[in-house]
Amino acid sequence: SGRGIQVVTPGPEHTFTLDEEALETILLREDIKDRSVVVVSVAGAFRKGKSFLLDFFLRYMHHKYNLHGSGVDWLGVEDEPLSGFSWRGGSERDTTGLLFWSQPFKATLDNGEKVVIFLMDTQGTFDSETTVKENATVFALSTMLSSVQIYNLSQNIEEDDLQHLQLFTDYGRLAQESSQGAPFQRLQMLVRDWSFPYDHPYGAVGGQQLLDKRLKVHDGQHPELQSLRVHIAGCFEELACFLMPHPGLNVATDPHFNGNLAAISQEFKLCLKQLVPMLLGPENLIIKKIGGNKLKSRDLLLYFKSYINIFNGAALPEPKTILEATAEANNLSAMAEAKEVYETLMEEVAGGAKPYLQPSRLEQEHHRARDKALHGFRSKKKMGGDEIAESYADRLVKELEEQYEQYRLHNEDKNLFRQLG
Amino acid sequence: SGRGIQVVTPGPEHTFTLDEEALETILLREDIKDRSVVVVSVAGAFRKGKSFLLDFFLRYMHHKYNLHGSGVDWLGVEDEPLSGFSWRGGSERDTTGLLFWSQPFKATLDNGEKVVIFLMDTQGTFDSETTVKENATVFALSTMLSSVQIYNLSQNIEEDDLQHLQLFTDYGRLAQESSQGAPFQRLQMLVRDWSFPYDHPYGAVGGQQLLDKRLKVHDGQHPELQSLRVHIAGCFEELACFLMPHPGLNVATDPHFNGNLAAISQEFKLCLKQLVPMLLGPENLIIKKIGGNKLKSRDLLLYFKSYINIFNGAALPEPKTILEATAEANNLSAMAEAKEVYETLMEEVAGGAKPYLQPSRLEQEHHRARDKALHGFRSKKKMGGDEIAESYADRLVKELEEQYEQYRLHNEDKNLFRQLG
Ligand SMILES: Nc1nc2c(ncn2[C@@H]2O[C@H](COP(=O)(O)OP(=O)(O)O)[C@@H](O)[C@H]2O)c(=O)[nH]1
Ligand SMILES: Nc1nc2c(ncn2[C@@H]2O[C@H](COP(=O)(O)OP(=O)(O)O)[C@@H](O)[C@H]2O)c(=O)[nH]1
Ligand SMILES: [Mg+2]
Ligand SMILES: [Mg+2]
Repeated sequence: SGRGIQVVTPGPEHTFTLDEEALETILLREDIKDRSVVVVSVAGAFRKGKSFLLDFFLRYMHHKYNLHGSGVDWLGVEDEPLSGFSWRGGSERDTTGLLFWSQPFKATLDNGEKVVIFLMDTQGTFDSETTVKENATVFALSTMLSSVQIYNLSQNIEEDDLQHLQLFTDYGRLAQESSQGAPFQRLQMLVRDWSFPYDHPYGAVGGQQLLDKRLKVHDGQHPELQSLRVHIAGCFEELACFLMPHPGLNVATDPHFNGNLAAISQEFKLCLKQLVPMLLGPENLIIKKIGGNKLKSRDLLLYFKSYINIFNGAALPEPKTILEATAEANNLSAMAEAKEVYETLMEEVAGGAKPYLQPSRLEQEHHRARDKALHGFRSKKKMGGDEIAESYADRLVKELEEQYEQYRLHNEDKNLFRQLG
Repeated sequence: SGRGIQVVTPGPEHTFTLDEEALETILLREDIKDRSVVVVSVAGAFRKGKSFLLDFFLRYMHHKYNLHGSGVDWLGVEDEPLSGFSWRGGSERDTTGLLFWSQPFKATLDNGEKVVIFLMDTQGTFDSETTVKENATVFALSTMLSSVQIYNLSQNIEEDDLQHLQLFTDYGRLAQESSQGAPFQRLQMLVRDWSFPYDHPYGAVGGQQLLDKRLKVHDGQHPELQSLRVHIAGCFEELACFLMPHPGLNVATDPHFNGNLAAISQEFKLCLKQLVPMLLGPENLIIKKIGGNKLKSRDLLLYFKSYINIFNGAALPEPKTILEATAEANNLSAMAEAKEVYETLMEEVAGGAKPYLQPSRLEQEHHRARDKALHGFRSKKKMGGDEIAESYADRLVKELEEQYEQYRLHNEDKNLFRQLG
């Protein structure tokens, strides 16, 4: 029993709404509000089996923590449909924002500490209706608020997966303003549909091999590749990877597949039995910490509010597409160069140590310097196309005119001095 | 017969080497050098069946253009291993740079024009040893030099696939300096392992539906999403998409799979029979054009040389990771703001219309303004971390000191004037 409750909803104009009431109902329940929290989240591209996986987490937790392990196998019986967080076939996104499972699970750690476990489902990244900023916010927020973030990948760990992870975690780091230590706790990469068990075996061991290989920093590696790896390693207290086999073509393709175990490959089920207790067994639970302090359920509510405010505020820079970011950097850099050209040329004729110039002559010099600067700006190759470049060119001209005004005033000074001298 | 010949090899320091000799042997052969060329290229992420697909292209072309359609089905017999461009299982990259098939295929168009067809295989993007610049160059170069670029995708068209396409094509556009019209010819997206035939059927029709949906520009859509779509549509004369079914789990997972047809799913083979003639049948061949002019085989050699020089030169901006580009833009923008703060403060006390200041006073004001500017720079939130920010802060201080030197000289002027006045 229970259901996925949407606690964060993306709104228009890049804002996010927190459903405080729903969250309070979940987090402030009398019997759990003072327990330390364990928050497990799943994030990654849309339509890659995230919610499907979470529903097996629910089965395990129900069996383990509600039924206390009595009865049959936690994985369930062969013909039972899979329910829980909404999952489905089809090529379009399903979930938006962040969802919490309405029923918390109460567990006791090996050391006797009583905790409560929450599951969080997230909006998949890179569907065709979502901006980079929205993707970055959902990913960063779920990473900041979970003790275990599962980064759900398809087929392999590719460099672009790591580049996005780097962007999203840097965004979270910026919002969190944490001081020392790794800002986040455990990152569990999960490669779905792994096809090369002869290179690295399915499961945690093969995953660790692949992860070590992908994140290795070595001499002769390009600095771009190195700094990405150093960044990611520094963002998490713990990094792990698990390789999942393909669940069978029915699971991926059959529109009538309802999640029943009979249709899922044996290998996939074996791996689930390894993965799920590894994350959610009482001996493996990780309590959420922020700034070194364990969080209680009621604290989590406060952090939700505070983080949402930060992401809705104006202090954070806006993540953009790789082309937009590159275009902005190229244009700003060309603008700065053009301003230097202007200044160098103007100082040569109208600098502090230069004599007074006739106003018309000064204006001529200004036009000459401005045109040279503008020409330099325009002939510099910049990504992003002409339209963007022209808007920066306009800004450049405006700033050069302001500088000219200063030269004009200084020149007037010199005139007074000349007339008196 | 024939083999894949590496014509472009990535070298150290982001340079690319062209094997002119090899290319001349292919392109300047007496019987083909004056024929118009058709160049079909496949690009996209590594380990996604690009070379495997090209080998079916080779089978078709051999059957169609060498054997002139005689004999059995072009797809081949059930137990024949698939050969041609090197393809293999495993999780690590295989191909680097650009490869050309050594044997050109001679064809005659429906209008009687004699052409020659070349196949190009490319280094997959996003393996863990390749920088963004290298990926962008391989993709851009293969797009610029082909008449049909096949963009090989896995499972779906995701927004990040489009964002990378946008970056890579903008890079190519910049290198090409083409004037009017779309810079490139046909982009054929090819979605492998499509799993939702009940949403959109396998093949060209379903592909077109998906493509239309993904590239649709509509009111209320965020400008970031709109401009990406407008950009991509404007880059190609023709855009198409084809949805391929999964070839069967053996093909993906069996290390001993040798490409024999018996192990490939019936649906995959049916789709191949639709796709390949659609791209390579005599009625569908597209002659390579640059700037509106048809290219002959020997012209292609010249363009290869000229493009390689451009990519090896210093005129193009360097594509970087999304975090690096964002960090650069954030820091440059914060620097420009800080400089404005400095100027505004200094103009208030030492502008052209202000009286002479004691040098020690001016220096005090400079320190005050510089510290304010620097404080503004530092407190502005920027992606990329402190180390990068500090290198920009150093640059900022240097530039502010230069500006101060100008204020000092202007102030000296005022002093002279005051002494005389
Ligand atoms: N190929 C593949 N498909 C899966 C896997 N797990 C679930 N699916 C299917 O993927 C589709 C989307 O699942 P869903 O959990 O809604 O994806 P989400 O958007 O990431 O939450 C459904 O058709 C599932 O049956 C997997 O490991 N591999
Ligand atoms: N899942 C899947 N695997 C494929 C497909 N086509 C080929 N493969 C397998 O993918 C692996 C890599 O193939 P290859 O052509 O070398 O990939 P490339 O790196 O993109 O050139 C091989 O094991 C092929 O058997 C496909 O359509 N889907
Ligand atoms: Mg989901
Ligand atoms: Mg290949």
